[in-house]
Amino acid sequence: MSDLDRLVHLLAKLPGLGPRSARRAALYLLKRRETVMEPLASALADAAQRIRACSACGNLDTADPCSICRDPRRDAGLICVVEDVADLWAIERSSAYRGRYHVLGGTLSALDGVGPEDLRIDALVRGVAAGGAREVILAMNATVEGQTTAHYIMDRLAGSGAQVSRLAHGVPMGGELDYLDEGTLSAALASRQPLKHP
Amino acid sequence: MSDLDRLVHLLAKLPGLGPRSARRAALYLLKRRETVMEPLASALADAAQRIRACSACGNLDTADPCSICRDPRRDAGLICVVEDVADLWAIERSSAYRGRYHVLGGTLSALDGVGPEDLRIDALVRGVAAGGAREVILAMNATVEGQTTAHYIMDRLAGSGAQVSRLAHGVPMGGELDYLDEGTLSAALASRQPLKHP
Repeated sequence: MSDLDRLVHLLAKLPGLGPRSARRAALYLLKRRETVMEPLASALADAAQRIRACSACGNLDTADPCSICRDPRRDAGLICVVEDVADLWAIERSSAYRGRYHVLGGTLSALDGVGPEDLRIDALVRGVAAGGAREVILAMNATVEGQTTAHYIMDRLAGSGAQVSRLAHGVPMGGELDYLDEGTLSAALASRQPLKHP
Repeated sequence: MSDLDRLVHLLAKLPGLGPRSARRAALYLLKRRETVMEPLASALADAAQRIRACSACGNLDTADPCSICRDPRRDAGLICVVEDVADLWAIERSSAYRGRYHVLGGTLSALDGVGPEDLRIDALVRGVAAGGAREVILAMNATVEGQTTAHYIMDRLAGSGAQVSRLAHGVPMGGELDYLDEGTLSAALASRQPLKHP
């Protein structure tokens, strides 16, 4: 396999790129050797060598414990449980959360053979049992697998003394009712909020 | 900027990836360090160092002249002129062409300030004038810029003795008439082919 074929083959593995867009990306890179291609090569090598999963929460960072776990301004009594690091990043982008995280690394799935021992559930339960949290927010995706996993974790945390909560379901900001599924509308109706006259 | 931010920032520059898919790609890579991330880092570094434009035709290859220009089974009397290396690759994938190529590196564009001196047109004209080709196939894109460039090259090749041709226009294989534009349909009608009874 030529150097070029090998590059296109590896680029095509990235999510969002297929064989055709991988060829376009390879050409784009070859035309921008100094400005993009060589920096990307070294960024990949650096990240592969230096970024590790935080042993406490599972976040990806160059430091262990990660910068979130080490931040003294973060509320250590509040733990937000997410499926994946991408979900942690999404919550961080909202700037609406100042507690800590626990990354499971996936969801329970009988179909894919993923059991509780394959996820970072025991570490969470041990930490909460040791009095490490006042509240645990289950922020799994609103999918069947995500909710199954949330139920399982809720059972495991029974009697731990920590309050267990989940994210609210409802109409997304900017969402149009006509385009929403029935499940979301039912949840939004059931969790309707009283309004007060000003 | 952290290692991770730098990686996401560079990945987001690739055509086909935006900030969101660049984050997904970075996560995908960090989960496949040995199998994809490190090989991709070295494939990028190798390609950046070793792949160069062929001094004869403009194709990208680790050898100069490129493997197509050096192939004695290729018809050196037939030159296919393309805008970009991606077009050369597309024609090679069809396996329908056994001549050589000439990559222009773009199209004439008054809007973007691209003149004949910015493209590899002089080299083509010199080579053909030196008796280097029996036929020149102008395989530019069927866009305004592509066709302007084709007309310009045809004028420059007048009197060179080489036959100048262009790709046929018509209904794409698998194409449905109802979805074709008027220009393509007019061209397909004007170039209609006589059928013979068997």
